[in-house]
Amino acid sequence: MQRIKGGICAIDGVRACGVRAGKYGLALIAASGTAAGMFTTNRVKAAPLAVTAEHLAKGHLDGIIANSGCANAYTGPQGVEDARMMASLLAGFLKSDEERIAVASTGVIGRYMDMDIIGRLFEEARGRLRSDGEAGLEAERAIMTTDTREKEVAVEHQGLRVAGIVKGAGMIEPNMATMLCFLFTDADFSPEVLKSCLADAVRDSFNMLTVDGDTSTNDIVLLTATGRAQGRIEDFQQALRYVCVDLARQMARDGEGASKFFETLVTGARNEADARLAAKAVAKSSLVKTAVYGADPNWGRIICAVGYSGAEMNPDLVTLGLEGSGLKVDLVWKGRIAEEVLDKAREIMSGEEIIINIDLGLGMGSARSFGCDLTHEYVNVNANYTT
Amino acid sequence: MQRIKGGICAIDGVRACGVRAGKYGLALIAASGTAAGMFTTNRVKAAPLAVTAEHLAKGHLDGIIANSGCANAYTGPQGVEDARMMASLLAGFLKSDEERIAVASTGVIGRYMDMDIIGRLFEEARGRLRSDGEAGLEAERAIMTTDTREKEVAVEHQGLRVAGIVKGAGMIEPNMATMLCFLFTDADFSPEVLKSCLADAVRDSFNMLTVDGDTSTNDIVLLTATGRAQGRIEDFQQALRYVCVDLARQMARDGEGASKFFETLVTGARNEADARLAAKAVAKSSLVKTAVYGADPNWGRIICAVGYSGAEMNPDLVTLGLEGSGLKVDLVWKGRIAEEVLDKAREIMSGEEIIINIDLGLGMGSARSFGCDLTHEYVNVNANYTT
Repeated sequence: MQRIKGGICAIDGVRACGVRAGKYGLALIAASGTAAGMFTTNRVKAAPLAVTAEHLAKGHLDGIIANSGCANAYTGPQGVEDARMMASLLAGFLKSDEERIAVASTGVIGRYMDMDIIGRLFEEARGRLRSDGEAGLEAERAIMTTDTREKEVAVEHQGLRVAGIVKGAGMIEPNMATMLCFLFTDADFSPEVLKSCLADAVRDSFNMLTVDGDTSTNDIVLLTATGRAQGRIEDFQQALRYVCVDLARQMARDGEGASKFFETLVTGARNEADARLAAKAVAKSSLVKTAVYGADPNWGRIICAVGYSGAEMNPDLVTLGLEGSGLKVDLVWKGRIAEEVLDKAREIMSGEEIIINIDLGLGMGSARSFGCDLTHEYVNVNANYTT
Repeated sequence: MQRIKGGICAIDGVRACGVRAGKYGLALIAASGTAAGMFTTNRVKAAPLAVTAEHLAKGHLDGIIANSGCANAYTGPQGVEDARMMASLLAGFLKSDEERIAVASTGVIGRYMDMDIIGRLFEEARGRLRSDGEAGLEAERAIMTTDTREKEVAVEHQGLRVAGIVKGAGMIEPNMATMLCFLFTDADFSPEVLKSCLADAVRDSFNMLTVDGDTSTNDIVLLTATGRAQGRIEDFQQALRYVCVDLARQMARDGEGASKFFETLVTGARNEADARLAAKAVAKSSLVKTAVYGADPNWGRIICAVGYSGAEMNPDLVTLGLEGSGLKVDLVWKGRIAEEVLDKAREIMSGEEIIINIDLGLGMGSARSFGCDLTHEYVNVNANYTT
């Protein structure tokens, strides 16, 4: 796996651009090929998701139009009409069909889109579509909200390229930790293969990421394959998983108000489902998150989170350790407490990146989750917004 | 339902006392009668819970010994031995049997009990057992940790009395939001009746309460019936439910770092299980909790939490309103947004007690949850503790 430069425009056939005006931003991405997508599991789904899901049914996209500033969620028939209008704007310019355009939005819930602004931004943006290394970042910046840095990655693996940009987790309005992720590859696979590989990659990456445990109405992940290169499915799948995990890590590092990043690796679970439950419970626990913020090696909180996760566990078999800042310690070894390592543990917890290793000692199931600390700044970001 | 004075000692046959020494505190309660209990669902269960569950199997208690300062959790065979020793201390003094004593602990996980301190505190406490109105509060104070106020209630209803004290949600070490709740009644019912009434009351009160979503290793609720009065099961059940809901509200108001309290009433759910899911999701949402802290009528976050709760919902049928500070407004009416009421909504959200009303418009299921805001102080309390 080789990391390469250029972001999403490192993929042959991808052009991008973005513009902003006040709270609104608009990103355009042109890329023709087979496509697949995944959407929020929230029962309240934003209008652009409904429109995009319908368009994706045919398995082919020519481009993506995405905005920040308004989520176009809880907006009824008007919202659907506005989302279709956005698709038709880009379709017209690309001489494509509205049904081959995906639409994504992030912003306030329960407000109608300001289509005048969208129209003006579109006029400004369309002439900027290009494939240089800056173009992907420009698109990214147009849809960023409380994100503090651009998040992109591109890799080459066995003759195939995969790249992506992601916005999230964190929005000024209404702070839903909305994730918009646009992935591209030059591989040549059917929509069905893309869909299956995407589901696999998302399961081990974005689905194991938690910032505040809330699930947005607008989450969307799209994958377009321009088909300009040939390669094996296994290699593509590996590269796609690498890209998604890398983006998930970047998102956790950039979580709302986050000052520190931690991964929880659960091994020895009865099965993989149990490992996922345990790893996610630790990443989600407000008590673990504040302990990470306070650099406190409070393994009791970690064990406690595993205990209520729903995963099978026997406290007498658990081994729990911390890793980071070049150090590694076991705090609990098969249920026995090792108090003498607390100083080292404190040093690890003071670092900016921490790995929590938990071996349940029961079976072969393993899973990894991605999380960030819960800070004063998180409360600031989310309490000081007014509807 | 009539609220009465005297706390748990308003129940004929109950004596109590408490003492403190540094981080440790010890409460003793003498009360003979049929008994029932409920315990944490965490797979890591503290030693005193195992011992108490065993003792409760016979359905009769003569007293309770409870300490703060050490959770006696994750302490293996030594922990069980220490819990038994605590039971035998009180049994000896009450001329009872170790198997008729309940034990409860709250404090740091993964540390052994300091039995010397427990012994000394016990010597000091036992002479203080009495039934005046201060005695219950003294017991309560002995097991309080980050609690900022005593929480007790006593009622009389159709000739029966029910009373309780509760500690939680919030501990200095390790901040597990551990709940210790001791309930008493002068009613005369079998352990089976007590158990069924307790399960019913807990389901609508403590199980609908969330401070940070973590489940402690030490949560325990005990109910002892001294049998000195006669009355109907229905009346007892009603009084018990009233007491538990009142204590749950007091706990939410006293949640770690909490500055505001909110209730979420879900009606019109497909069924009761769905109503519970929806109400709890709203109470648990970090985004709703920070919005309450920031006095932001951000109903999008509330709808979003219902959307991912797992409850069946149709956005077009939802009616959502806020109540408090003597005001009441609908923000969403059957899916239609009422923006003109935002000023009133802001005023309600500025109050210290807020009710969120959600009608899903689908069926007859209803449920109420209890929660508190997520504040800078919560992060302080939980980040600044060092193991």
